[in-house]
Amino acid sequence: MPNMVIVGTVALDNIRTPFGEVRSALGGSAFYAGLSASYWTEVGVVAIVGEDYPEEGFRLLERHGVDYRGITRSKEKTFSWTGEYTYDLNTAHTLKTELNCLLSFAPDLPAVYDHVDTLFLANIDPEIQLRVLDSMPVRPSLVVCDTMNFWIENKLPDLKKVLSRIDILTINEGEARMLSGEFSLVAASRKITAMGPKTLIVKRGEYGVLVFGKDSVFASPAYPLEEVKDPTGAGDSFAGGVIGYMTRSRKSTNDVLRQGVVVGSAMASFCVEDFSTRGLENLSKTAISGRLSSFASLTSYPDLPPLDAGMKG
Amino acid sequence: MPNMVIVGTVALDNIRTPFGEVRSALGGSAFYAGLSASYWTEVGVVAIVGEDYPEEGFRLLERHGVDYRGITRSKEKTFSWTGEYTYDLNTAHTLKTELNCLLSFAPDLPAVYDHVDTLFLANIDPEIQLRVLDSMPVRPSLVVCDTMNFWIENKLPDLKKVLSRIDILTINEGEARMLSGEFSLVAASRKITAMGPKTLIVKRGEYGVLVFGKDSVFASPAYPLEEVKDPTGAGDSFAGGVIGYMTRSRKSTNDVLRQGVVVGSAMASFCVEDFSTRGLENLSKTAISGRLSSFASLTSYPDLPPLDAGMKG
Repeated sequence: MPNMVIVGTVALDNIRTPFGEVRSALGGSAFYAGLSASYWTEVGVVAIVGEDYPEEGFRLLERHGVDYRGITRSKEKTFSWTGEYTYDLNTAHTLKTELNCLLSFAPDLPAVYDHVDTLFLANIDPEIQLRVLDSMPVRPSLVVCDTMNFWIENKLPDLKKVLSRIDILTINEGEARMLSGEFSLVAASRKITAMGPKTLIVKRGEYGVLVFGKDSVFASPAYPLEEVKDPTGAGDSFAGGVIGYMTRSRKSTNDVLRQGVVVGSAMASFCVEDFSTRGLENLSKTAISGRLSSFASLTSYPDLPPLDAGMKG
Repeated sequence: MPNMVIVGTVALDNIRTPFGEVRSALGGSAFYAGLSASYWTEVGVVAIVGEDYPEEGFRLLERHGVDYRGITRSKEKTFSWTGEYTYDLNTAHTLKTELNCLLSFAPDLPAVYDHVDTLFLANIDPEIQLRVLDSMPVRPSLVVCDTMNFWIENKLPDLKKVLSRIDILTINEGEARMLSGEFSLVAASRKITAMGPKTLIVKRGEYGVLVFGKDSVFASPAYPLEEVKDPTGAGDSFAGGVIGYMTRSRKSTNDVLRQGVVVGSAMASFCVEDFSTRGLENLSKTAISGRLSSFASLTSYPDLPPLDAGMKG
């Protein structure tokens, strides 16, 4: 019985990076986030797919215990993103976006999700995000939203309505600047949290994330990998890990948020190690546990001695 | 009596950023590093200045207890760098480099530096760095070197000789890629440490640093500031802090290196808050101590519970 629900896209992606290429590969914001969260809590995905969507996608969710009763099948084709990355893997270059069935997506959440603890509004039209928020009989105790430059440019009024009703916004560095009109991320965070969310998570690709809360900033690095094969889905896997962990912990304290951000960073690091969702599939506890230990040692250092002992004058 | 010596440039800089402009301002790699290190250990600076160099520069060093007996005064003009930054404060755009007296710089270290513990070869011609290494009767127990793209492109054989004789290299992200021919920093670190230095510190501007040692990686963020006025000297202040702290600690263990990197990051964060060296001048213990506490809270999170308690399956 899911206690976390994700609304977003399920897609078939065509991706090219310097390390290879995949076509009609499993993807989408809700799909990545769902797989990632599945390691931490009972999660359901609400999305729409077309009649061309392969059974393989459902089987993968099933194997990870993801509830997909909220995935509608339409008569159109599945949403598809075609993009490529050059050696600067921080920037995706969109070659084609075929919305297809997404154009008629008007999700009605299965009644079984009426009382979930947490809701992740993954990257999708803010009109749909609003519709979902309106449809819930009880507001989940934690509502997290992701968005992108396209919605900031084209659906700002709707996006602002969403922002006024959420707890955490996850957004890319450049998008935080675009949304706030501020170059400094400290200034940007103040403006964006004034729009609603108590917490802003700024995603910086290979540089990790900055988390701005009330009177608190947390910096978490991305895991330095020898080879990043495909960054697609990293942000969604990150969010799925953060929220999955927070749902499991049943707390939204600053400490749990920070732990969640580290879990999310670990899940994202698995995601980018292979194409499509392959890096997120069938992860063992040993693998996850090892990556989390590596994260801990990546940032830890012994307390500095008091300054009088450590300084000259 | 200095136990750390810095060889590098002392300059008069002309700098423009979106937040203002300074002309003939105090600067130079050894100058920034010296001021920064002065808070942590007894430090001497070896450099050359021209007859136009203002007394103010010496007075500033004096006030911070920096030994400047190793600064030669030539009859030519002082080295001068003219550059500007746009809102992307990570990238300096060089408008003019006037070497002037630097062209005749052939440092002879004062005998009083013969037995210093640590040596920082700040950014300068690798031929000069080699000359300094050759001139020392005893190799200091810690030798750190900084360099830049210009030397990688134009003096690679000399630079490689330097690298074979040092303990730590500090270098910008883009320069690490240039020097190694590898895009992945993990791969780059392997190639660069094979050239000599046991430790590679990759500087990533507002994203902080990555430290690659033998079997150990450490990530330290830059402090998220509301306003960065002038990034000039950030890397040198960083290095001065790292090495100053390590010199004070009389140890080069992995733990002390990590603590030093945090100290260096704190010193760099003061540096960029104002133009030229103003941000590094007359810092109180309270200010430094407060910044170090902020750094600690910026990256700390409670240990994650064991996975069996934290995971679903």
